[in-house]
Amino acid sequence: MKDVKKYIEANKDRFLEELFSLIRIPSISSESEHKGDMIRCAERWKELLLEAGADNAELMATKGNPAVYGYKNIDPAKPTVLVYGHYDVMPVAPLDEWNTEPFEPVVKDGYIWARGADDDKGQSFMQAKAFEMMVRTGQLPCNVKFLLEGEEEIGSVNLFDFLAEHKEMLQADIILVCDTSMIAQDTPSITSGLRGLGYWEVEVKGANRDLHSGIYGGAVANPINVLCKMIADLHDENGHITIPGFYDDVLVISDEERALMAQAPFDEERYKKDLDIKQVHGEKGYSTNERTGIRPCLDVCGIWGGYTGEGSKTVLPSVAHAKISTRLVANQDYDKINQLFINYFEKAAPDYVTVKVTPCHGAAPYVSPLEIAGYKAAEQAMTTTFGKRPIPTRSGGSIGIVTGFERILGIKSILMGFGLGSDAIHAPNENYPLFNFFTGIETIPYFYENFVRLMEEK
Amino acid sequence: MKDVKKYIEANKDRFLEELFSLIRIPSISSESEHKGDMIRCAERWKELLLEAGADNAELMATKGNPAVYGYKNIDPAKPTVLVYGHYDVMPVAPLDEWNTEPFEPVVKDGYIWARGADDDKGQSFMQAKAFEMMVRTGQLPCNVKFLLEGEEEIGSVNLFDFLAEHKEMLQADIILVCDTSMIAQDTPSITSGLRGLGYWEVEVKGANRDLHSGIYGGAVANPINVLCKMIADLHDENGHITIPGFYDDVLVISDEERALMAQAPFDEERYKKDLDIKQVHGEKGYSTNERTGIRPCLDVCGIWGGYTGEGSKTVLPSVAHAKISTRLVANQDYDKINQLFINYFEKAAPDYVTVKVTPCHGAAPYVSPLEIAGYKAAEQAMTTTFGKRPIPTRSGGSIGIVTGFERILGIKSILMGFGLGSDAIHAPNENYPLFNFFTGIETIPYFYENFVRLMEEK
Repeated sequence: MKDVKKYIEANKDRFLEELFSLIRIPSISSESEHKGDMIRCAERWKELLLEAGADNAELMATKGNPAVYGYKNIDPAKPTVLVYGHYDVMPVAPLDEWNTEPFEPVVKDGYIWARGADDDKGQSFMQAKAFEMMVRTGQLPCNVKFLLEGEEEIGSVNLFDFLAEHKEMLQADIILVCDTSMIAQDTPSITSGLRGLGYWEVEVKGANRDLHSGIYGGAVANPINVLCKMIADLHDENGHITIPGFYDDVLVISDEERALMAQAPFDEERYKKDLDIKQVHGEKGYSTNERTGIRPCLDVCGIWGGYTGEGSKTVLPSVAHAKISTRLVANQDYDKINQLFINYFEKAAPDYVTVKVTPCHGAAPYVSPLEIAGYKAAEQAMTTTFGKRPIPTRSGGSIGIVTGFERILGIKSILMGFGLGSDAIHAPNENYPLFNFFTGIETIPYFYENFVRLMEEK
Repeated sequence: MKDVKKYIEANKDRFLEELFSLIRIPSISSESEHKGDMIRCAERWKELLLEAGADNAELMATKGNPAVYGYKNIDPAKPTVLVYGHYDVMPVAPLDEWNTEPFEPVVKDGYIWARGADDDKGQSFMQAKAFEMMVRTGQLPCNVKFLLEGEEEIGSVNLFDFLAEHKEMLQADIILVCDTSMIAQDTPSITSGLRGLGYWEVEVKGANRDLHSGIYGGAVANPINVLCKMIADLHDENGHITIPGFYDDVLVISDEERALMAQAPFDEERYKKDLDIKQVHGEKGYSTNERTGIRPCLDVCGIWGGYTGEGSKTVLPSVAHAKISTRLVANQDYDKINQLFINYFEKAAPDYVTVKVTPCHGAAPYVSPLEIAGYKAAEQAMTTTFGKRPIPTRSGGSIGIVTGFERILGIKSILMGFGLGSDAIHAPNENYPLFNFFTGIETIPYFYENFVRLMEEK
C-alpha cells in the first residue's frame, strides 16, 4: 500500500464532514419514534458507499429496519472481504448529563463528541473511507462487500433471518468488523472473544393500585421491596450468580492461559481513577480482566417504580420494574440461560406478588482462533501502523450477529476495533479520538493487503 | 341541633359546586411549578370562610405556603373549637391510570372522583359547611377558629414554627380534624392513634459515568444492584426491620389490649379481593390491623436508576436512587430514628460505592385518650348520625402536625374523619362517596353541641 497517509491527510476535513452527516441522523433503533430516521440513515449510507466506489449499493428489506448492502467486484479469482457494521445507535438519556448535543457532533481537544462517534458510525465509516482510498488510488487487492444493519443495539433480531435468506449473496472469505476497543492508544489489541448477552424485563406486581403507605404499609407487600430482594438474592456474598445451573457450561480456562492473559498491561489505579471509584468489585477469585473477559456477570441496567418525582410522596406502589442483563462466556447457551432466568424469577416469587419476565434479547458468546489468515492479517496491519504487535483480548461486550456469521454463513469474523474504554459508548458524552479514527482508516488497507497475500500463499 | 338534614338537602348542589371550585385548583405542594396554585387555593379558602360566616379570614405568611386563618367569636365565656385542615394535595402521577381528569371533579355512581375529593379538600370543606349551617340557622354554640395549611403532604415543615409564633391566636379547647378514615360506611370509627413518619432519599453512586455493561460488567459495582441489596437487607426473613435499635422504644401493647383491638371487624378475604392480592404480607406474629396500627413499617415509595425507556439498553449505570419511608408508632422518636437510618446506610455502604442519605421529612406518632370531652363529643355525634357507636382505631397514617398541636399549643386533637379505605387517597382515581360527604356535614354540628354541653357540665 502506498500513500495511505498522504491520501488521508488530503481528505481529512471531507471525511469528518461525511461522518457528521451520518451522526446527525438520530438513528436510535430501540425507540419507535425514530423509525423514519432509520430509513434516512440507511439511505445516507447507500449514497456514501456509491460515492466511495461501490459498483452498487441498495437498501434491502428485513423484518425490521432495512440493511444496506453494497459491493465492488474486481476479480472472481480473488478473495472477498465482507465488511460488517451497524448504523443504529443507543438512546441518549439522561440528556442533562451531555456536555454537547448528542446528535450535533463537535470536535474538541482532539476528540469527536456525539452519540455514534465511536459505536458504530465512527468505526464503520473508517471502513468506507479505507475502501475509497484503495479504489481511488487503484490499490484495491480483492472483492469487497458491505453489510450495514440497523438493529445491532437491539440484538440484531432480524439479521439472522436475513443471513439465512441471502447466504449466497453474502459469501466471503473473512468478515471484518470495526466495533470493539483496544487496550490503549499506545497498546493496540484485537478482540479474540466476545461475551454473549441475555436481557430481560422483570415486572413485580403487588396490589391492583397504588396505596397509601400509612394505611396499608406493613400489611401489604411492597413490590419494590420484593423486587430488590429478588435482585439482591441473584448474587451470593462472593459475587457468584446464584441462579441454579448458571455456571454449568462455563468454559474453564486453564491456569496457564490465565497466566498468559495476566500479562496484558492493566493499571488498576488508573482504571479506578478514570471511573472515580475507591474499589473495583466483582466475583471473588478473579482479576478485573478475567471478570469481564472469561466470566459471566449479571447487572441491573434499569429499575423504576413508585414515585420518582420531586419531594416526598408517601405511596405503597402497585408495581415495580427492572431491566436485567447478563453477559455470557464461551460454551454458555443463551436459550438455556433464558429458561434458567425465567425459572428463577418464577420460583423465587412469593405468593403475595405476581412476577412476569419478558425476554428482550439474547446473543451467544464467540471465540476466534489466532492462527487464521484474517487474524494474522489484522495483527500485521496494526503492527505496521501502531509500531507494536497487538495483544489478543477477550472483550466483555457482545456482538450477537458474529456468532450468526459463523453458524449461518460459515465465515469467521475479525474484530479489529479502534475504540477506547474511555469513549463512553452507550453513555452520555460518547466520544472518539481523531487519532484513532484516522489511524483506523490507515490500518484497514494493510489488513486487505496482508489478507490477500496470506490467502494466496496458502 | 335542629333542621341539619333539611339545611343540607336545600343546599346540596351549591355545596358541591363550591367544593369543586377548590378541587379545580391543582395545589400540589411537592411540585414547585404549582407555587401559584397554592396562593390561588388559599385565596379561595379565605373567600369560602367569609361567605360561610367567619368574622374575618386572611392569608398568613409561613416560611413556605401561606396558612389560611379565620374565626368567629360569639362569647369569650364559651369554649373554642379550632378546625384544622389542609388545602394542599398529593401529586397525580401516574396520569395514565386515572379514569377522569384529576383536577376536573366528576360525580358518578354516588362518588366524587378527583385529587383531593377526600384528602383533604372534601373532608375539610365539610367543616366549613357545617359551620355555615350553624351560623345561618343561629345555632353556633361556641367560638370557632379555622386553620388551613398548604404543606401537610410535605410534612407540615413550616407550620411548627407558625404554631410557636401564634400560640395566643390559636388558643382553643379542642382541635377538630377531618382527615382520616372510618372502618366502613356502616361501621363508624374514630382514629385514636396515628403513626409517625420518616422519609428519606437515598443515592448510591458507583462510577462517575454510565458504563457499557459488557465492557465493565462484572468488574465495577452496579449501584442499582448495591441499592437493591441494601434495601433487601432492611428486613429479615420474619419481616422485622433490621436497623439496629429501631424497635427499642416501640410501645409494647398488652395482650388484653391486643385482644380488644382484635374485635374490630376485619374481613381479610374482602381486603385481599379489594386489592387483588393472593396473600397479605408483613411482620410475623401480628395481624393486618396490628401491622398497620401498632407496629412500625418501612417501605420503598419510589426507586429509579439506569435506563427505564423503551427497549433494551445495555448500561451499567452510574447512580441509583430510592425514596424510603418508615411509619413510626407510639414512643418512637423521629430524630432518633432519623439518626439510626442514616447510620445504617452509611455503615452498610461498601467501599466500592458512595451513599448519600437526605432526610425529607419526619413526624412523631400520636395517641389520643378516649376519656376526654372532645372524644366523647365525637363518639356521641357519630352515634346520632350513623346509629352505631363508633369504634376507636389506630390509623397507620401520619398527620405530623397533630403532635405539634399537643407539644406546642398544649391542645388535644380529635380525628373524626369520614373517609374510606377505598378512597384511593395519594393514588390515581381518588374518590369520596357523596354519602360520607353529606353525613360528615350532618355529624359535625352534633360534635359542637355535645362538646359545649360536656365542657359546661365539668
